[in-house]
Amino acid sequence: MRIAIIGFGKIAGDQHVPSMAKVGGYELVGTVSRQGVGVEGVPSFTSHSELLSAGLDLDAVAITTPPSVRYAIARDCIEAGLHTLLEKPPGVTLGEVEELARAAEAKGVVLFTTWHAQHNPPVAAAVERLRGKTIKAFSIVWREDVRKWHPGQLWIWEPGGFGVFDPGINALSIASRIFPGALFVRDAELFFPANRAQPIAAKLTLESPAAVAQLSAEFDWRHSGGEEWTIRAETTDGMKLVLRDGGSKLEVDGEAVPGTGPGEYPSIYEEFAELVAQKRSHVDLTPLRLTADAFLVGRRTQIEAFDD
Amino acid sequence: MRIAIIGFGKIAGDQHVPSMAKVGGYELVGTVSRQGVGVEGVPSFTSHSELLSAGLDLDAVAITTPPSVRYAIARDCIEAGLHTLLEKPPGVTLGEVEELARAAEAKGVVLFTTWHAQHNPPVAAAVERLRGKTIKAFSIVWREDVRKWHPGQLWIWEPGGFGVFDPGINALSIASRIFPGALFVRDAELFFPANRAQPIAAKLTLESPAAVAQLSAEFDWRHSGGEEWTIRAETTDGMKLVLRDGGSKLEVDGEAVPGTGPGEYPSIYEEFAELVAQKRSHVDLTPLRLTADAFLVGRRTQIEAFDD
Repeated sequence: MRIAIIGFGKIAGDQHVPSMAKVGGYELVGTVSRQGVGVEGVPSFTSHSELLSAGLDLDAVAITTPPSVRYAIARDCIEAGLHTLLEKPPGVTLGEVEELARAAEAKGVVLFTTWHAQHNPPVAAAVERLRGKTIKAFSIVWREDVRKWHPGQLWIWEPGGFGVFDPGINALSIASRIFPGALFVRDAELFFPANRAQPIAAKLTLESPAAVAQLSAEFDWRHSGGEEWTIRAETTDGMKLVLRDGGSKLEVDGEAVPGTGPGEYPSIYEEFAELVAQKRSHVDLTPLRLTADAFLVGRRTQIEAFDD
Repeated sequence: MRIAIIGFGKIAGDQHVPSMAKVGGYELVGTVSRQGVGVEGVPSFTSHSELLSAGLDLDAVAITTPPSVRYAIARDCIEAGLHTLLEKPPGVTLGEVEELARAAEAKGVVLFTTWHAQHNPPVAAAVERLRGKTIKAFSIVWREDVRKWHPGQLWIWEPGGFGVFDPGINALSIASRIFPGALFVRDAELFFPANRAQPIAAKLTLESPAAVAQLSAEFDWRHSGGEEWTIRAETTDGMKLVLRDGGSKLEVDGEAVPGTGPGEYPSIYEEFAELVAQKRSHVDLTPLRLTADAFLVGRRTQIEAFDD
């Protein structure tokens, strides 16, 4: 598959490029970055329009830009007949991603909305363990230091930037994948620094027909001294499951359970190759819908200003 | 159809009860209201649980409570095997309504999410006129006085109360119905009074593959001296369409176009009877999704406190 990466930055260089190489069957033939960075020996462009008009004989694109500009780029790539892989979150509204899905369907190309945290090998093992169970307790704790993980990233604080939901949506992507039933938001509290347009912390109460209690999620970007990315579940038949480190470690009843699979981004590129071979799109809006619902129903609490 | 109304208040008495009588085929056999109000000669209850355990041989319920409590009530009614009609908006999150749709499907009952403004007779005429067209200008202006239309209604200002989107979602329900293509939110500005948890005004920019320009919507609850509920559309082939008074009057190229149909709520009860006869649910989440997207991507601007 002849592929280009649009929005070439740290995640593209660290994860996408090596994963394509590891999986095989991909040829990186172009990159786009407003700053002109890319990969030595691969043509680089400063806009997706330049890329699309360069006559590169492309099959596909991976779009790894900030989410607010993804729709317009993806729309043009789909219109150009390219299979399209979107980094998480796939857009800044549900509506624009639904429209991309319709456009891809109409054009006969594959659209793949990726949620990398779902591809951690232990996540599939957690899905198996929880299948058919009833949940009696479930909590998500997602705490990290925004100064460490997003230094100088201004867009995360702007409308459409998601704030603490930028990491929090990873937790929601895992939770919605492993939960043995639908998951939806009951209520939420969003904490906005006085000088920021996006929340720095959030508390959610979730509900599910597969649960006998309310479920909780806590996201916090004000956490220094090491991150905590943990999901705990307890079933009515007494099983205790803990996913740690963002889905990369699983314990069931206190014992480590190994995962299987090639790892987050290699798994994404394996799946993309399968989807393209089968001409089948995979559009999962659930993590974005949970986020939109939290913004819709959430109480906004203004807190002290936050400076990087 | 033996039906009960849950959440008996002004809209139930003014619209639902006479519309059932007008359409025919309905028998109102119970009402629920926390204050115990209802219709003379019809058994009234103070909770939906009381209603469901009263042995009334019910076929269906219409739920006209404030939206925040609708999910739990609807879930119990669906579980009890009742066809379920929901006033707008059908819930406070997309996720809970999707879950109700799944539950209704599993139970084999009909779920009908109603958007009364869509049932104004001229709306169907507007759909016909705009079908297949390309839009070059589109604006929604929805201005009313919250003191006149929602006196003493505290829930509209609380999380899950929607604020100015409570009327605004009516405009979005018409717009999404008449627009000749998908409609989604590009950006939004939400104006929150300092002492309120919900916006008193909002400006949205919308986008569509069926439009060659950006589209606008303005909702404002600070408008005294008569309401304005207007949608204007202009097509690339020069047609000018105006829907006034909340969808109840249509002008095309300056000429009044009469609508056909029995009117808002009678049309809803006609459709409900058809859906039940065909055992087919009708779940339209688009207006709620547009609202959730506006909250997700919107910039929040705090303005002066607002007192009733």
